[in-house]
Amino acid sequence: MTQPRYTQIVQSLPATVPFVGPETQIRARGEPFKARIGANESVFGPSPRAIEAMRDAASEVWMYGDAESYDLKQELSARHGVTPAHIVVGSGIDGLLGSLVRLVVEPGDTVVTSDGAYPTFNYHVAGFGGVLHKVPYVEDREDPATLFAKAAEVGAKLVYLANPDNPMGSWHRGEEIVAALDKLPDGALLVLDEAYVECAPEGTAAPVDVDDPRVIRMRTFSKVYGMAGARIGYALAAPELISSFNKVRDHFGVNRIAQAGALAALRDTAYLDEVRGKIAASRERLAAIARENGLEPLPSATNFVAIDCGRDGAFAKAVLDGLIARSIFVRMPFAAPQNRCIRVSCGTEADMAAFAAAFPGALDDARTDQPE
Amino acid sequence: MTQPRYTQIVQSLPATVPFVGPETQIRARGEPFKARIGANESVFGPSPRAIEAMRDAASEVWMYGDAESYDLKQELSARHGVTPAHIVVGSGIDGLLGSLVRLVVEPGDTVVTSDGAYPTFNYHVAGFGGVLHKVPYVEDREDPATLFAKAAEVGAKLVYLANPDNPMGSWHRGEEIVAALDKLPDGALLVLDEAYVECAPEGTAAPVDVDDPRVIRMRTFSKVYGMAGARIGYALAAPELISSFNKVRDHFGVNRIAQAGALAALRDTAYLDEVRGKIAASRERLAAIARENGLEPLPSATNFVAIDCGRDGAFAKAVLDGLIARSIFVRMPFAAPQNRCIRVSCGTEADMAAFAAAFPGALDDARTDQPE
Repeated sequence: MTQPRYTQIVQSLPATVPFVGPETQIRARGEPFKARIGANESVFGPSPRAIEAMRDAASEVWMYGDAESYDLKQELSARHGVTPAHIVVGSGIDGLLGSLVRLVVEPGDTVVTSDGAYPTFNYHVAGFGGVLHKVPYVEDREDPATLFAKAAEVGAKLVYLANPDNPMGSWHRGEEIVAALDKLPDGALLVLDEAYVECAPEGTAAPVDVDDPRVIRMRTFSKVYGMAGARIGYALAAPELISSFNKVRDHFGVNRIAQAGALAALRDTAYLDEVRGKIAASRERLAAIARENGLEPLPSATNFVAIDCGRDGAFAKAVLDGLIARSIFVRMPFAAPQNRCIRVSCGTEADMAAFAAAFPGALDDARTDQPE
Repeated sequence: MTQPRYTQIVQSLPATVPFVGPETQIRARGEPFKARIGANESVFGPSPRAIEAMRDAASEVWMYGDAESYDLKQELSARHGVTPAHIVVGSGIDGLLGSLVRLVVEPGDTVVTSDGAYPTFNYHVAGFGGVLHKVPYVEDREDPATLFAKAAEVGAKLVYLANPDNPMGSWHRGEEIVAALDKLPDGALLVLDEAYVECAPEGTAAPVDVDDPRVIRMRTFSKVYGMAGARIGYALAAPELISSFNKVRDHFGVNRIAQAGALAALRDTAYLDEVRGKIAASRERLAAIARENGLEPLPSATNFVAIDCGRDGAFAKAVLDGLIARSIFVRMPFAAPQNRCIRVSCGTEADMAAFAAAFPGALDDARTDQPE
């Protein structure tokens, strides 16, 4: 009885996981975290109308979801001033990135991203046999000029750029990104991940011509809309690229309850404004806590703040471990020199108070363990 | 500005959709169906406890779902007498089939299925460049001996067998399938799709040794559990094969609400029994309606009944069109000679009454249009 014959790519892949989830950590600890502010989830939750829509949809879940996400695409197209043919709805940006990589990357194809940028994108590129080239951040930002120059150098088929950036919270003005497109080499497709754009300053969303075949933009209901567990997001691009998703996507794969919730969330613009206000206030609070501890908070256009712990990655890791030990779930950047920071998501007043209470002790312990 | 450079496989793929969804048909009609009994959804709905669990989970959807589906796997492992390492949870059998095909099929690899069996499996095989060989049904059943002989002949890496079968509702005793494994050639992996097994006669589930590396079994919450729109299912196999899914799957891709609902559904065994009773009664009713119209219902181990319309595929298609025109959503097999049938899902009393009322007219019209 022989084993299954895996593909060459699969045989070469490690059994890695892009992230260890908070539930996994909670089981290892044996108790929940006091503050769950590590995965950039929105603790403020979805719109009450979205919750109501999802609750109402629960009894209808015996029906498959609409394979075309028609109603949601209608609403999105009105909002973005595009046609439904410019939109594909998928099971979150993770799912859409997987489909997109599959559409363009075959074994040996080159792809460019920033060192320390979203690891799930890298996971998909490796999973389809792509060869990933990484460029450094420039002043803690993913840098279009550096990315596009590398893409030209290696003949990349795909270039990843998040704006705003995760894990640093930094951003570019959208028009700067559009201006930089002149440097994107022919035949390279830019994936512009705008997961956090709804809580960024006015002008951060790139005013890309939706028919421009060089760019696909990704949006999600996981972050500011507070629906990470629902697995629903969308991409905006030229109709030809959008329709190519129909060749590979799981047509009935978007949860029916998620579709109902996303539609209601989108329509509740008052709640979105309210959440934006809460995020802005929590960013201020996180910055203040950093400063109270003698540390520098980085400016953020997202629902989290990177706090510069002032030394190297080993030190920041010790601080992070001290926070985890004190029941505060946070994360940190993977790559130097960004890994001098910890990354703390916005939270409720209680979350902020718990973080403020735990942070000095975590810093003290780290300084004791690692004297300068 | 050049177009994205798609992979060779993607360039060769048609933009086909495995199924046109009922919502798409409803929009084309401009009104809902009187009876939605075409997609083998469970009109009886999920367990009230599952609905309650999903409603409760709606406000928690700001959190990502557990990437390990730990609680659900615990419950499933107890139920199946296996360890959690023998189980992978995914976004429905469709999603799991996609991951599985990706794990083993590279361009040019051969795969075997039955002509007229589940088209979404074929979609995945084509999507990864596999070469599909089809064998005929034998007496309206997918036939292990024929499938395995073809697999040996073409050196298949993957063989698909649904038990019970969709679209015919036929089945084999599980022990017959296990006995037939001796004929499965070395290096071929059998995908045993047991989507409908919960409403099949005792003994239909194949008593496969879960550590046998030759077989992976797939189960779903979409059918008898009444949660098609939730996108959640699981596979049972040897730990090595199960862990390989971690190389390619969307780790955070299973909806949090779906996980909560599936766990509650699994625990409500009384409701499962109730639904089984309703399915059995509805199958009887469908069979009686067929006979009242002078037609033969096929025996069924599923939540639908194939009704032999007594002539060829064109005639059955005319009957189907007549039913659709009368606001009854049903489907039919794709391949001859199974396409002499229409396929009608179990339904409520109201669904059955609507079908019974519409069927004679649809048959009359078809006979008028296509005189023998």
